[in-house]
Amino acid sequence: MLRLYDFWESGNCYKVRLLLSQLGEPFERVPVDILQGQTRTESYLKRNPNHRVPLLEWPDGRTLAESNAILFCIADGTPFLPADPWSRAQVLQWMFFEQYSHEPYIAVVRFWHFTEQVEQNINTLPGKMYGGYGALGVMEQHLATRTFFVRDTYSIADIALYAYTHVADEGGFELDRFPAIQCWLSSVSEQANHVAITDPVGVEISLAL
Amino acid sequence: MLRLYDFWESGNCYKVRLLLSQLGEPFERVPVDILQGQTRTESYLKRNPNHRVPLLEWPDGRTLAESNAILFCIADGTPFLPADPWSRAQVLQWMFFEQYSHEPYIAVVRFWHFTEQVEQNINTLPGKMYGGYGALGVMEQHLATRTFFVRDTYSIADIALYAYTHVADEGGFELDRFPAIQCWLSSVSEQANHVAITDPVGVEISLAL
Repeated sequence: MLRLYDFWESGNCYKVRLLLSQLGEPFERVPVDILQGQTRTESYLKRNPNHRVPLLEWPDGRTLAESNAILFCIADGTPFLPADPWSRAQVLQWMFFEQYSHEPYIAVVRFWHFTEQVEQNINTLPGKMYGGYGALGVMEQHLATRTFFVRDTYSIADIALYAYTHVADEGGFELDRFPAIQCWLSSVSEQANHVAITDPVGVEISLAL
Repeated sequence: MLRLYDFWESGNCYKVRLLLSQLGEPFERVPVDILQGQTRTESYLKRNPNHRVPLLEWPDGRTLAESNAILFCIADGTPFLPADPWSRAQVLQWMFFEQYSHEPYIAVVRFWHFTEQVEQNINTLPGKMYGGYGALGVMEQHLATRTFFVRDTYSIADIALYAYTHVADEGGFELDRFPAIQCWLSSVSEQANHVAITDPVGVEISLAL
């Protein structure tokens, strides 16, 4: 069975939980408390030298890091990743957009709220909010004439962008300014076998990390 | 002919120039001065709403943004991107690592030096240096037992990581601390049809942006 090293509140981890659930793929879930430094232990660093979650482990011991690389890998050959090269290029474009122009703003501000670090980051907060609203603006413009990001079909591009967008309000982003995004969020949440970020999925196991 | 919207000093743009050159693919090069706001004009935003370079344009008008998505797209079916799914997953893992854990530190500090903005970012500089050295440490560990990043064959994972690593010293990073990286940099630069970041390649054309 696949094994996911996972932190509940992480949108990056949620992407993988969501896709595995929609694929009907059973998996073990190893809780990793990033706030307690569990990604920096010797045993975890052997699995992922870049000390991050999520990490997916195969029964033969192979591991893969980077949420969007994991999505691409496990979606390949399924309806969640189109087969034609141009659509795949666009899926990747949006997934790199997510990791470079979206997550470092929207996810980071949410994390500051979550860990009560807003005050100590007060000087960089305006730049982070500006960048986050910029990313939401790009998405709004694209979605104004589409239901989903690529080929108007639900794909891992939507999963990657949904993960932190649907909880952007937890970082103080006002999503009601973006009607097309709101409509898209509803469409994503209505897909078959959708699970919420807080839904318990996977078979939880404990490992000493 | 393919058309590349390009800024010389950008490592992200250099990735695409390097691969196109190694593929022997002729292309037009449109210089875009990001320092003069040329990615924020109405005509540029029509091509890339996310106001960044590089952007690749096909003769039929299709455009693709995000350097690593462009690499994946134009390398597909060539020796620069392995065909088997597991190798492709690892290539993507390293390319997402590059955009999330490497570029935002190493490229950003280099940019501050380049634009004389080090002083005004002096408070965030230590964190940026720490993150950059962290990424170099992860690379050093991986390369200690390998010539190239994936399958020990030169691929777009190497191109993506080479672009800003080989000029990291311009941001003050001391590369001589990393012998395996030094060895890998040499191996990359010795590949057939390698071009340097400053080499004039492509057919330069001027467009009003």
